[in-house]
Amino acid sequence: MRIVIALGGNALLRRGEPMTPQTQRANVKRAVAALLPLLEGGHQLVITHGNGPQVGLLALQAAAGPREGTYPLDILDAESEGMVGYLIEQELSNVLPGGRLIATLLTQVLVDRRDKAFSHPTKPIGPVYDKAEAERLAQVSGWRIAGEGGGWRRVVASPRPLQVLEARVIELLVSQGVIVICTGGGGIPVVERSDGTLVGVEAVIDKDLASALLASQLRADHLMLLTDVDSVYLHWGTDAARPVARAGTRALTAADFAPGSMGPKIEAAIGFAAETGRPASIGRLEDAALIVAGAAGTRIDAATTSVTLRAPG
Amino acid sequence: MRIVIALGGNALLRRGEPMTPQTQRANVKRAVAALLPLLEGGHQLVITHGNGPQVGLLALQAAAGPREGTYPLDILDAESEGMVGYLIEQELSNVLPGGRLIATLLTQVLVDRRDKAFSHPTKPIGPVYDKAEAERLAQVSGWRIAGEGGGWRRVVASPRPLQVLEARVIELLVSQGVIVICTGGGGIPVVERSDGTLVGVEAVIDKDLASALLASQLRADHLMLLTDVDSVYLHWGTDAARPVARAGTRALTAADFAPGSMGPKIEAAIGFAAETGRPASIGRLEDAALIVAGAAGTRIDAATTSVTLRAPG
Repeated sequence: MRIVIALGGNALLRRGEPMTPQTQRANVKRAVAALLPLLEGGHQLVITHGNGPQVGLLALQAAAGPREGTYPLDILDAESEGMVGYLIEQELSNVLPGGRLIATLLTQVLVDRRDKAFSHPTKPIGPVYDKAEAERLAQVSGWRIAGEGGGWRRVVASPRPLQVLEARVIELLVSQGVIVICTGGGGIPVVERSDGTLVGVEAVIDKDLASALLASQLRADHLMLLTDVDSVYLHWGTDAARPVARAGTRALTAADFAPGSMGPKIEAAIGFAAETGRPASIGRLEDAALIVAGAAGTRIDAATTSVTLRAPG
Repeated sequence: MRIVIALGGNALLRRGEPMTPQTQRANVKRAVAALLPLLEGGHQLVITHGNGPQVGLLALQAAAGPREGTYPLDILDAESEGMVGYLIEQELSNVLPGGRLIATLLTQVLVDRRDKAFSHPTKPIGPVYDKAEAERLAQVSGWRIAGEGGGWRRVVASPRPLQVLEARVIELLVSQGVIVICTGGGGIPVVERSDGTLVGVEAVIDKDLASALLASQLRADHLMLLTDVDSVYLHWGTDAARPVARAGTRALTAADFAPGSMGPKIEAAIGFAAETGRPASIGRLEDAALIVAGAAGTRIDAATTSVTLRAPG
């Protein structure tokens, strides 16, 4: 089976943890251990990952460092693909049987400059500030800010991904059995100019939507979106919360779930399953092997029209 | 022909230029334009690049940013491979005929933890400071510093590269006609622990030595080290300076040239030519196409024992 596995930011950095190199490496080790049964299963694997906390830290570092111009988000995205991709590749190679090749590829993703996300930025990156500090930063750095929960954060454009530009290289590698790490942080956002050339833009692409697009371009057999929650839940946050085992592509809609958390995952999973007729799953990193077997997580499937709830554990 | 092309730091950032994203992109455009005749020549191409100024800037940014632990040089190297590799890939794709594939690969390079470079760091990175400021930074950051020319700089270990770990993936891609950008900044330095697993170390590997190693592992037909000087010169800096057109591997030694500038290039070129019997060249970025044809630059060649000087232009 060819499987695209998206490692969520929350799977790589647990909520509230400091983002030191040590925590990042420890979490990457944990992720790799959870994927090991799949790695040994003879599957063709493509691994993508989030970069929200990392790109937020790199943006703050760039702003605090020497004034060598303003480093835009496309370059910071590329840096974060280097940082996170390196740790995943190294820890993967440390548990894999010798001889299995791994490649970490920089990945650009085409977006449309007319995407309304550029005039209405909504994706939060970096730390949470109080209102006064956020307003000060907005003033001096030209950031857009928005209230989120109890605090304020920088928000950036999150345009819809249209094409993973390196998909043919990824295909070439994965079809030869190479494990490919790519499309980190949803990929580096680029637009096409009127003369057909490409240039990077200030944006961060949703990693789940980009992973679904990549899975579709690669004709993957399964898209797996891994996070720190075991299933999609109906009535999440209430006494009536019930885990979903399986759902048809028209039985759930992203609008029923909070944006920024489960919403984009459900939208990505439904999009992939509806377009390709192949299943997409959402679940917990530690359950990766069970999820492929259909024994954990939530499977979104074009072959059904119903919602099957899981018996409470 | 299979050619490994190393773009020097000085070819990507002219001496004294500020390291803004705009200057970096402009210089990458200039480099890509100089390589275009080779790109169109049907050669198998692997492009490596320096990262001295970039990793220096990233280190300063990381030190100035929020205190999320200390980001070590292996991670900063990986970030710089993302930053520089992205710009090269994007600008290459903007001039290449459609259909030619490009891949930017993160690259780890094995070094020996017992390398004496770890106890005697010599490689300068980042800006030049006055002595008092350098000593203050050494105190607060644990840096090693050294006097260089008129000022003081941070120096880090530069161990000898032993193996480019992704060489088989690079081979797979380049043999399919994909242009591969890799081994940025000499690669991410890693050591093997006693249990056989890999871990990154605080070091920066010389990009020319790593490129020569890669060229040898790939059985390249030609290693080309590009910089901002048109040739190797005998008696450089004196009235008797004479450009070298061609030299045998035993006719020049790196010891005759200043460390940090031409020395590592000559050592890398001699090493590749002596080991493989194939030529290595050193010359100016703008002359890349002429250098391959033997009409510019200095060619180091195991087939000769003499030194041929070029007629003064």
